[in-house]
Amino acid sequence: MERIKPRTLSGFMELLPAPQMQMERFMETLRKTYSLYGFTPLDTPAIESAEVLLAKGGGDTEKQIYRFNKGDADLALRFDLTVPLAKYVALHANELSFPFRRYQIGKVYRGERAQRGRFREFYQADIDIIGDGKLDILNEAEIPAIIYKTFQTLGLSRFQIRVNNRKILNGFYAMQGLTEKSGDIMRSVDKLDKIGPEKVGLILMEDCGLTQEQKDEILKFIAISGTNEEVLTALEGYRGRNEIFDQGLEELKAVTAYLSQFGVPQENFAVDLTIARGLDYYTGTVYETTLLDHPEIGSVCSGGRYDNLAEYYTDRQLPGVGISIGLTRLFYVLGEQKLLNPALPTAPADALVLPMTSDPGPAIAVATSLREAGIRTQVYMEQKKFKQKMSYADKLGIPYAVLLGEDEIAAGKCSVKDLTTGQQVTVSYEEAAELIQQGIREKNSGAVILEN
Amino acid sequence: MERIKPRTLSGFMELLPAPQMQMERFMETLRKTYSLYGFTPLDTPAIESAEVLLAKGGGDTEKQIYRFNKGDADLALRFDLTVPLAKYVALHANELSFPFRRYQIGKVYRGERAQRGRFREFYQADIDIIGDGKLDILNEAEIPAIIYKTFQTLGLSRFQIRVNNRKILNGFYAMQGLTEKSGDIMRSVDKLDKIGPEKVGLILMEDCGLTQEQKDEILKFIAISGTNEEVLTALEGYRGRNEIFDQGLEELKAVTAYLSQFGVPQENFAVDLTIARGLDYYTGTVYETTLLDHPEIGSVCSGGRYDNLAEYYTDRQLPGVGISIGLTRLFYVLGEQKLLNPALPTAPADALVLPMTSDPGPAIAVATSLREAGIRTQVYMEQKKFKQKMSYADKLGIPYAVLLGEDEIAAGKCSVKDLTTGQQVTVSYEEAAELIQQGIREKNSGAVILEN
Repeated sequence: MERIKPRTLSGFMELLPAPQMQMERFMETLRKTYSLYGFTPLDTPAIESAEVLLAKGGGDTEKQIYRFNKGDADLALRFDLTVPLAKYVALHANELSFPFRRYQIGKVYRGERAQRGRFREFYQADIDIIGDGKLDILNEAEIPAIIYKTFQTLGLSRFQIRVNNRKILNGFYAMQGLTEKSGDIMRSVDKLDKIGPEKVGLILMEDCGLTQEQKDEILKFIAISGTNEEVLTALEGYRGRNEIFDQGLEELKAVTAYLSQFGVPQENFAVDLTIARGLDYYTGTVYETTLLDHPEIGSVCSGGRYDNLAEYYTDRQLPGVGISIGLTRLFYVLGEQKLLNPALPTAPADALVLPMTSDPGPAIAVATSLREAGIRTQVYMEQKKFKQKMSYADKLGIPYAVLLGEDEIAAGKCSVKDLTTGQQVTVSYEEAAELIQQGIREKNSGAVILEN
Repeated sequence: MERIKPRTLSGFMELLPAPQMQMERFMETLRKTYSLYGFTPLDTPAIESAEVLLAKGGGDTEKQIYRFNKGDADLALRFDLTVPLAKYVALHANELSFPFRRYQIGKVYRGERAQRGRFREFYQADIDIIGDGKLDILNEAEIPAIIYKTFQTLGLSRFQIRVNNRKILNGFYAMQGLTEKSGDIMRSVDKLDKIGPEKVGLILMEDCGLTQEQKDEILKFIAISGTNEEVLTALEGYRGRNEIFDQGLEELKAVTAYLSQFGVPQENFAVDLTIARGLDYYTGTVYETTLLDHPEIGSVCSGGRYDNLAEYYTDRQLPGVGISIGLTRLFYVLGEQKLLNPALPTAPADALVLPMTSDPGPAIAVATSLREAGIRTQVYMEQKKFKQKMSYADKLGIPYAVLLGEDEIAAGKCSVKDLTTGQQVTVSYEEAAELIQQGIREKNSGAVILEN
């Protein structure tokens, strides 16, 4: 037979079982945390009509989209979870209750240039709150508070949620008579972290056509820094010159104050006037999240407030606020940085039952009893030497072996061997379950991420 | 602005929040049960190189495949989880430990003719055990035992796992001198349930070119029925005439005996000589599972033993056994039949906290305290009338409202209203958490499926 060389497409993550277990745990933490805040899980198709998916049209993403025909249908794979959410909410608006709080963890597709650590198929993990006509500012503080809680639950503490408000930026540009150019300016300022203020200044003058004075004003403005208190105080100096600016400042102050009420520590969030999310459709609060020890990764969780989620599909006004974690990339980077807690079990089973007589009955009985206690149990069923069976448990990192020899079977007992310590005890099935349960609980008690 | 009419492609399941919660619970039950048996979760890309995915080539599926180009690449969406598994195991064989036990719950794509209850994007939930060179017969009994456990955990009892062995069929056909035609015959016999023995007989003679005598022998053979004991006894009558047949009979007897040892009740499995899985690559034991009260659905869970999982990719022999649940279709049918337990909560939250003063602080504090107790809690943050807030909880089916008026706040307490009974008590945060926890535990205690 002619054989085809097996391969996985480049840019597509396919994990071995042990890292896959780490990924599952990661996703499980997200699901659980999001659920605790009353978000409902959603699942939408990976394929949509191209017309629907590209309603907003154009932009850099369009080239990256996987688009194809099937019969007469012009189809495309989703490139984010926000457009499908907009479609979903517009389509089902009359059947939903608002505010509509949903989370979605799903694969999205972008045919980007292949590059180490860049993925063409990747998970996004999104939460959004959609209002019907109106949405309280409190939601704009709750969203980053949930992200704080999520990251904290994962085991991270060295991260910062950076918050800004597009109205402050828009109002400020209006003060300078630069409203027309605000889009271009924001996109340029967005590069500040990467290229520094001097080069941004050059771009502002050469590409955006700003005067020296306008450029200086902008660089001065985005240089405002310090504690949240200090930044807000500096912003007060601009008050009264533009209505949109004043409104944005009020919102930013409210979000900052509420973030403290939501229990987010001062060191984990910062007002940062350089955050603009230039290319997106945000209209108010915007967020980015950086890992303090790994600024090179860029934002691992971004989002913001938008006034009109589904404007391409419906005239019903649906304002919202949301945030997205680029899960696959974050997981990849954490793995590369060796930040995934190696102490957490990655074995497919907690216990491996080794029958040592020809009748599998007792092995099946003890396995059933362990499973009833919630212990993930495999019966080793192949005809192999004892040493090979133990080596199987060892390679997979299964923490407990349960041995059933003739003596154990005669006594209605089993021997439990802790494969980490080598300790072995002969106990009843119930005692075996308790012993393993306790050990597993301890082994599973750590967080997904181990920072230091 | 010109608007695009929002729509979801036909043949693509997109659920409203309440049924989505039922689906999540369904999948969670599968994940949990599979894990209890020591299967490791796997996640492979939805897109593969067309060359890899179609290595086996041809067949009816090929027309249904979503295949497209991106740049130079000839790509296709996976149409099952078995081919990606074969690729995965062939590609990573040296990094895996055998037997390799994996489960995968993932979306697959088939561009079938649109039809009510037929899906083009649907979840399959697969378990497989892959051996390196060899795999013990015990695995062929364990797989249906796991399916029994899974269905039982979901709440089903009126189902039957039907078991046969391809070697018995192949051996029997060899006895009749019909080895060459065995594929055609099996495909015809596969239609028995749908068209009855007479029409099958006609097809066997007219299309397969069998003699009257051969046809009669086959119809007599597949008419063998009764208890498992009776069927096996009848099969003994054919023993000694063909080696393959005898081997298959031994295997079937072993699987039947072990199934009892695995605790599968007699009424939930049956030796059934009409099961062939005609189009598939099975070489030994084969399974189908039917819901006794809904035979019209056909098999909801099928699979079997194969000798050579990855023969298109590697010369390493990798025998295995596996089974697949067509999850989306099963979920759809159960919903249509009103078999999804309506008593289980589908709300996004267990408790809705209603602040009744302007400061959201106390509401946030009580919500934090409830979440720490594992209670899914939403703070209602919109400026609405009390009645509207309660109506929101009601529409979503949130079981508890937590009210925070001035009196409660002053006393450091909250009022918990059970929205099912209307009962309201004013208690401490801790008492509130206990009360809600207990209520939720009761409400969640039922199974996913309610048969009667």
